[in-house]
Amino acid sequence: MKNFDYMTPTRLIFGKGVVSEKLLQVMKQFGQRVLITYGGGSIKRTAPGQSQSLYDEVKSILQEKELFELPGIQPNPKFNPSVLEGVRLCQEHEIDVILAVGGGSVLDCTKAIAGVAGTLKGKVYEQVEEAWDIVCGRKPTTAAVPIVDIITMAATGSEYDMGGVISRTETNDKLAYFSPLVFPAVSFIDPTYTFTLPVKQTLAGIADCINHIMESYFCAEHIDMNDAFMEGAIRSLVKNVKRVLDNPTDYDARAEIFYATTLGCNGIYCLGNSESGWPMHAMEHALSAYYDITHGEGLAIVTPRWMQHILSHTTGTLHEQVVERIEKFGRNVFGVTGCEASIQAIHDFYRQIGIPMTLNEVGIDESRLAEMAKHVADNEGLETAWVPLLEQDILDIYKACL
Amino acid sequence: MKNFDYMTPTRLIFGKGVVSEKLLQVMKQFGQRVLITYGGGSIKRTAPGQSQSLYDEVKSILQEKELFELPGIQPNPKFNPSVLEGVRLCQEHEIDVILAVGGGSVLDCTKAIAGVAGTLKGKVYEQVEEAWDIVCGRKPTTAAVPIVDIITMAATGSEYDMGGVISRTETNDKLAYFSPLVFPAVSFIDPTYTFTLPVKQTLAGIADCINHIMESYFCAEHIDMNDAFMEGAIRSLVKNVKRVLDNPTDYDARAEIFYATTLGCNGIYCLGNSESGWPMHAMEHALSAYYDITHGEGLAIVTPRWMQHILSHTTGTLHEQVVERIEKFGRNVFGVTGCEASIQAIHDFYRQIGIPMTLNEVGIDESRLAEMAKHVADNEGLETAWVPLLEQDILDIYKACL
Repeated sequence: MKNFDYMTPTRLIFGKGVVSEKLLQVMKQFGQRVLITYGGGSIKRTAPGQSQSLYDEVKSILQEKELFELPGIQPNPKFNPSVLEGVRLCQEHEIDVILAVGGGSVLDCTKAIAGVAGTLKGKVYEQVEEAWDIVCGRKPTTAAVPIVDIITMAATGSEYDMGGVISRTETNDKLAYFSPLVFPAVSFIDPTYTFTLPVKQTLAGIADCINHIMESYFCAEHIDMNDAFMEGAIRSLVKNVKRVLDNPTDYDARAEIFYATTLGCNGIYCLGNSESGWPMHAMEHALSAYYDITHGEGLAIVTPRWMQHILSHTTGTLHEQVVERIEKFGRNVFGVTGCEASIQAIHDFYRQIGIPMTLNEVGIDESRLAEMAKHVADNEGLETAWVPLLEQDILDIYKACL
Repeated sequence: MKNFDYMTPTRLIFGKGVVSEKLLQVMKQFGQRVLITYGGGSIKRTAPGQSQSLYDEVKSILQEKELFELPGIQPNPKFNPSVLEGVRLCQEHEIDVILAVGGGSVLDCTKAIAGVAGTLKGKVYEQVEEAWDIVCGRKPTTAAVPIVDIITMAATGSEYDMGGVISRTETNDKLAYFSPLVFPAVSFIDPTYTFTLPVKQTLAGIADCINHIMESYFCAEHIDMNDAFMEGAIRSLVKNVKRVLDNPTDYDARAEIFYATTLGCNGIYCLGNSESGWPMHAMEHALSAYYDITHGEGLAIVTPRWMQHILSHTTGTLHEQVVERIEKFGRNVFGVTGCEASIQAIHDFYRQIGIPMTLNEVGIDESRLAEMAKHVADNEGLETAWVPLLEQDILDIYKACL
């Protein structure tokens, strides 16, 4: 078992009605000046059976605060303009706390805003490259504006971790920003907000979470207890996504999915396991940086092809490890025997619930695969992953995804 | 799935050599005046293969600090003198941080010291009843001295929760003290410290943790994912305790046990489950308050008799719930079928690893069972537990334990 150094100080307030019950009380511990960050406006729609939109509810609860807004944060959130604009607002209005309302992209973007605004001393639009250095980790995050969030999508687990993924379109960069200073102070998680999510997003969130867990499951050194946690969480997602497809307002199914995804990315499933290098995420990040596809769909597409590749391209002890992991995964998650059946089971599960399972289906053809493979090989360090991947391996996996 | 409001801000630094690696750096964030709390002196013994005792190592690492000491904290830690004396030391020396070095009892006692010292404004020996009111929760804990710990026993999970159990001998009280202000700031967990633990303590720690998990598993409303976590953790304990009995210095087995126990009591295994009322702990607390027996042994003795009692004394829907839980527990933890086999399996497991499984074996006869049953019925609220227990139920369970 590996040594670990772990902390997640975020308070999780989970369940039906928690925003109306506790948001005001929570926000009292922060100052008056609140920046509300959100996305394309889905929080302004009133869901069936609700008397007001989440946006209106939040503004009504916080009517005694001084509120500022950063709308329009996109999926695969952008350094320019969203992070830069958020930092500018924090500086101009001396923001005390940021309230992120939306999905993982809104919260990821908010973390970068909080860390850059806390760290950067001068005006952001005069120091764009310095701001980017902070996001890249080339300069340390030394302070951050506190974050509270109301998370409305079960997917990334950003509500319970200290990282976020930020894209910079002009350089085709998509990378992870981390700092222990950007753990949300409090995350509100009400599963009823996911009742009206489009099916596509529900499914992409499930795939995102399953893949987070798989990135930790597939490694050299692991313990029985973590295996049980991870297999149990994925079994629960597999079971509950079917319930939700049958009945989108099944509260218990939505709640269990949300809970599994909340724990999905902060490490608690795999403390003491060795590092895997997160190869599937590395390969997917290029896909969505180049083509802006949905992250969870990209992950689902890559997953079985990566499994097949490492099964076919390893020898000796490493191959034995690969076989043990793939077999155990299939047996304990899907109840199937053998590596081929395990790989087929995860593929078929995704296909059955309705995720597009080829790159062609999400609008990616062969033309830029080589370029992306080179970008990943040059930037993601996969030559030191559990199963090392070189440029040709990455290209082969991409081609198998077509 | 039930709503929950959860936070555990403690930083866990886990693994071989973490104290020498990181204690100094961690303690730098606190002030100069450190109170070291410990127990009967086992930390002063030099383990085989070590060059110095843990006590000497800590004092050497912290030589630039101003150190004060509270030795002699007993198992089932006492309000009088340990908590009172610790508070007095905090007041007299204006302690900045308490460093607890030892097992769960040392840390439990330290939490009460930290909370009472932080909250109480006047001298503790002139305000004994007010100090006790804080421990009982009749007066709120409003501040606490920060806590760091080096935990040397895998058992209570006190290193990752906000509670402790304190006994007041003169009134036969044994009760849980809680406050979010007494979460340890940092817990150091080096499994090698458990290599030289007496077998009795190793086993009692395992039983304590298994029972913590069972108290959460046996409830009305539960989710699949938590079941998988809890069953996986207990399976891991059952497997690894056998490895440790064969080879007390098996690092990976010790580490997995310690990790399971660290998570055992802070709620992460069962977020969203309904409350059970912790009946087995309530009944055991009277046993160890009246007779000062080892907590984990008392829990192991009570466990199968409580299971048998609720199986025999329930009807209708509640009985169906009981059957479902006991059966699933036996099937997924021990691989056995049916309720009777499940109850027998946990009994036999404890007996086989060497835990005394009757009250007579730990020196308790029939003479005070009725008195204890009344004490529990009057004070522990078990009439509202998942399976309600009245005085006669409690007495019957105690008698079945003889």
